[in-house]
Amino acid sequence: MLREAIFHQAGGAYAYPIAKDTLMIQLRAAKDDLKVVYLIYGDRYCGTDPVDRVIMEKYASDQLFDYYRAKVQIKTRTFRYIFLLDDGKERYWYNEFGFSKCRPLGYHSGYFQYPYIAERDFFEIPDWVQDAVVYSIFPDRFFNGDKTNDPTTVREWGEKPTSQMDLYGGDLAGVLAKLPYLEKLGVNTLYLTPIFKSPTSHKYDTTDYFEIDPHFGDKELFRKLINECHKRGMRVILDAVFNHCGYEFAPFQDVIKNGTKSKYWDWFYIKDYPITTDPVNYETFARNVWRMPKLRHANPEVKEYLLQVGEYWVREFDIDGWRLDVANEIDHAFWREFRTRLRAIKPDLYIIGEVWHHAGAYLLGDQFDAVMNYPFREAVIGFFGERTLSVDAFDERLTINRVTYPKQAVDAAWNLLGSHDTERILTRFKGNKKALKLAVTFQMTYQGVPFIYYGDEIGLEGGNDPDCRRCMPWDEEEQDLNLFNHYRKLIQIRRKYEALRKGEFRTIYKDEATGIYIFERYTENERVLVIINNGLKEEEVKIDLKSLGFDPTKTVQELLRNEIIKTEDGLLNLTVEAVEAAILVQ
Amino acid sequence: MLREAIFHQAGGAYAYPIAKDTLMIQLRAAKDDLKVVYLIYGDRYCGTDPVDRVIMEKYASDQLFDYYRAKVQIKTRTFRYIFLLDDGKERYWYNEFGFSKCRPLGYHSGYFQYPYIAERDFFEIPDWVQDAVVYSIFPDRFFNGDKTNDPTTVREWGEKPTSQMDLYGGDLAGVLAKLPYLEKLGVNTLYLTPIFKSPTSHKYDTTDYFEIDPHFGDKELFRKLINECHKRGMRVILDAVFNHCGYEFAPFQDVIKNGTKSKYWDWFYIKDYPITTDPVNYETFARNVWRMPKLRHANPEVKEYLLQVGEYWVREFDIDGWRLDVANEIDHAFWREFRTRLRAIKPDLYIIGEVWHHAGAYLLGDQFDAVMNYPFREAVIGFFGERTLSVDAFDERLTINRVTYPKQAVDAAWNLLGSHDTERILTRFKGNKKALKLAVTFQMTYQGVPFIYYGDEIGLEGGNDPDCRRCMPWDEEEQDLNLFNHYRKLIQIRRKYEALRKGEFRTIYKDEATGIYIFERYTENERVLVIINNGLKEEEVKIDLKSLGFDPTKTVQELLRNEIIKTEDGLLNLTVEAVEAAILVQ
Ligand SMILES: [Ca+2]
Ligand SMILES: [Ca+2]
Repeated sequence: MLREAIFHQAGGAYAYPIAKDTLMIQLRAAKDDLKVVYLIYGDRYCGTDPVDRVIMEKYASDQLFDYYRAKVQIKTRTFRYIFLLDDGKERYWYNEFGFSKCRPLGYHSGYFQYPYIAERDFFEIPDWVQDAVVYSIFPDRFFNGDKTNDPTTVREWGEKPTSQMDLYGGDLAGVLAKLPYLEKLGVNTLYLTPIFKSPTSHKYDTTDYFEIDPHFGDKELFRKLINECHKRGMRVILDAVFNHCGYEFAPFQDVIKNGTKSKYWDWFYIKDYPITTDPVNYETFARNVWRMPKLRHANPEVKEYLLQVGEYWVREFDIDGWRLDVANEIDHAFWREFRTRLRAIKPDLYIIGEVWHHAGAYLLGDQFDAVMNYPFREAVIGFFGERTLSVDAFDERLTINRVTYPKQAVDAAWNLLGSHDTERILTRFKGNKKALKLAVTFQMTYQGVPFIYYGDEIGLEGGNDPDCRRCMPWDEEEQDLNLFNHYRKLIQIRRKYEALRKGEFRTIYKDEATGIYIFERYTENERVLVIINNGLKEEEVKIDLKSLGFDPTKTVQELLRNEIIKTEDGLLNLTVEAVEAAILVQ
Repeated sequence: MLREAIFHQAGGAYAYPIAKDTLMIQLRAAKDDLKVVYLIYGDRYCGTDPVDRVIMEKYASDQLFDYYRAKVQIKTRTFRYIFLLDDGKERYWYNEFGFSKCRPLGYHSGYFQYPYIAERDFFEIPDWVQDAVVYSIFPDRFFNGDKTNDPTTVREWGEKPTSQMDLYGGDLAGVLAKLPYLEKLGVNTLYLTPIFKSPTSHKYDTTDYFEIDPHFGDKELFRKLINECHKRGMRVILDAVFNHCGYEFAPFQDVIKNGTKSKYWDWFYIKDYPITTDPVNYETFARNVWRMPKLRHANPEVKEYLLQVGEYWVREFDIDGWRLDVANEIDHAFWREFRTRLRAIKPDLYIIGEVWHHAGAYLLGDQFDAVMNYPFREAVIGFFGERTLSVDAFDERLTINRVTYPKQAVDAAWNLLGSHDTERILTRFKGNKKALKLAVTFQMTYQGVPFIYYGDEIGLEGGNDPDCRRCMPWDEEEQDLNLFNHYRKLIQIRRKYEALRKGEFRTIYKDEATGIYIFERYTENERVLVIINNGLKEEEVKIDLKSLGFDPTKTVQELLRNEIIKTEDGLLNLTVEAVEAAILVQ
């Protein structure tokens, strides 16, 4: 037994509550090493050593490891447990103190313990999150619905942006006008990049956190937009830019004017006075971005101010979520208080952090529901786009991404192919629409929340910022309607099948030689099988559907072509074309 | 290379700030597998891939793993990094996405990231903690300093306790009277088990959180005790029993009387009304301990009440720390607020949680400074007492205990041999005082805060609760003064040598056959070498002290016998008797 590979800790993704009295427990072992893993568990206060045991399910694997898990329920909510590992040749007991051949007994023998599922430690994501399909709008570039509020100088709609100061006149009226388009596409959750007052096109440098940018509209219009969205069953998420403010932010202007006498001096990290922008003599977002002075969250006034901003737009306008900009450079204490105070106002508020790297420290139920899943994007690009990731490597990236977080955070993750901060996906795919369509099929059938960056659905291209923020073309001649219909169809499929929205994920088959990748999504009552052929040749796929839980007496339907598939006693024999997929249900 | 054994995550004990701009980074690998581990690191916002590199130090090992670490400083406080692992045969780059033969490059290539050391996320333990030697007092059994406040019925001092209701008349006046004794022993931090009003001897069932138990004294006397301690350079830590209250607690009595009409109904988990104690129809500490109704911390009123209790005794009486009873059954949010609010009153307040198992979730700098280190006790018992742990297994237990937590929590841990909740150590050692003395030598020279349970220092015995709470014998005829002097000498040695209090720990040598265990404690300026002979025969120990940084031209001193040790050109040849130790310094 490769004991060095065994890993468990009684926390994080390895032990977390999934109900008030139920824990999900995970164990990692070397790939193909163990035959059986027993979890022996009991109440911490039981006078004798635990005897209840369950066989853990091997539910995921990557190139080095297998991942086992089990759910255990104890009404008193107080847990201790030990593992018994069996590789067919030898057996080890595994607890906090390590490995032993004989079972360690007694209260002090080193049981793993999850001492108590406290009411406030439970990780709850909103019910509606797993039904969401998110559409990300960069308002200045989506649609100009009201020319009367345009900035004095606007560029011609459709000209390529060359600076972050370019303004095109897009606005909230534009979003409102295009709700029918969004309904037709099928998305049900809008994420707007910042809409508060700011001089730039992106508005990540806030002048006033309590005002809608006048070029976008006003509060009355925003309220109308929210109402219209809610009427249509759509939700709206705003962008919380709390790491830094804008240069024009009144407290920063006060510091510029009054120096150390300013009551806002301690709101920032000022290195020298008078303030200069070249060189920048104050801390900023990233490195010396003079437009974005960093806020000092350790200052209780700053903290309170920002929390009140967060509360204001939820309480007064009933927004449905906050996406947290540069969330990883603000302290954890801030985000904990943010969650507590905002969830008190709206218990089903959706909170998503911008964290590009491993985000475990934020995803324990006390801060975010999930993060923007950039590692998902990297995996998709590597497999479908650049073909630098083999099917094994792709599956591994996804597995690592899933087993690393509590299931709640995986279900709530924003699985994106691109954003306002990246090259557009079609550009990254070098214009290969067939590959993109396959990637979208994958995105819409995978676990987590699909996230569409405006325009990607009609084939808009664009390199890195600012080019990825091109104007949305509304002339259908300039839209790829075939691609639009592919997105639309996949969204419809996702919305129809609960297993795609709420089901578990399991890799069924993968083959390096052919590029075939088969996985299933399943709930207790429903099962969807997805066959991806990422190879460059058509392939004949043979599967015993019976062994996967399909009923051999019922017909099998393929959803992309909307065909009935013939099987013989549950044996499927299906040809899947190169860079195509099949989605099977009963 | 055994890639399955490699472990790192950018958090917990594997990446944590040790200064405002400095991270400690740890990596685990299979034992004796790697030849060199490079850490390549840089600023996250640097436009090019990091080039700064440092060779990581192999600083600890157990039976399966080696542990490497390095400190890295980046003035901007924003980090990304990748490891290069070299086992002499092959090299792998290791990042968030796993292992690769070629270096992954680019911003999205999977660097581990510690995005920003936020001011409020830094883990600070009080400066004085590393100098502390804690003495734990169970007030009813320590000394009866005032017969006038005795309960109506007291048992004869020295009779064995048989019930948790036995009272002996010990009190705060008794503690005050015995300060000279404690000064002579050399301890400088008193931990008092609960002193608030309660009917039991242990007082873990609080009747009134704002009153001193009248059998112990009053607030005036308590203030005097604190002042007298502070005058002597001693600190005082109280016991925060916040998981549950006592049956007599006024809000619980109100619920008993008024049922659902009580405004305190939601302070508890009441299952049925009227309240009954047999069977118990409300949630309690442990299992149906009717005297200890569990408090509902998710209720903001309860939370606020308890936080104010915490604040009151710090603000009004200037206590120096809180030990948190049953800390692991109260939610994390409570303890975070506790730390924030209490540290705002007293920035060097010492906060220690009662957690017997792995406590990583509490030791990230946002909740406790440390926990009561029961795994330390188990290791010491197994090695010195029961001889069921080999020297390798003992060293492994300690290594796991150290590498699992940030260094701050290791330095602040309460390394105890016993407490009011365990058999006394001498009893557990079956009366073997020679073994106990060796264990004490180890405890006083090991990393972390030594914790003495009253009476252990004079050879008091006792089985599990209530027997471990016997009266302290004050007749010197009943005290083992030889043992007392051993404790006293070791405390003096610890207090004299900074390396023993603040130094790093490193295992130098261990031998299964002889039971020889050698380790060093060291700072930049000081080095203490400890040789433990836990074997049953005397052993000749040969060490090249030069190779350990000793100066061959200077004399070497052994502190236990206070002898000058002869060396030849730094070569030490020392006989250590069975179950004895040597402590060497220059
Ligand atoms: Ca406009
Ligand atoms: Ca008394």
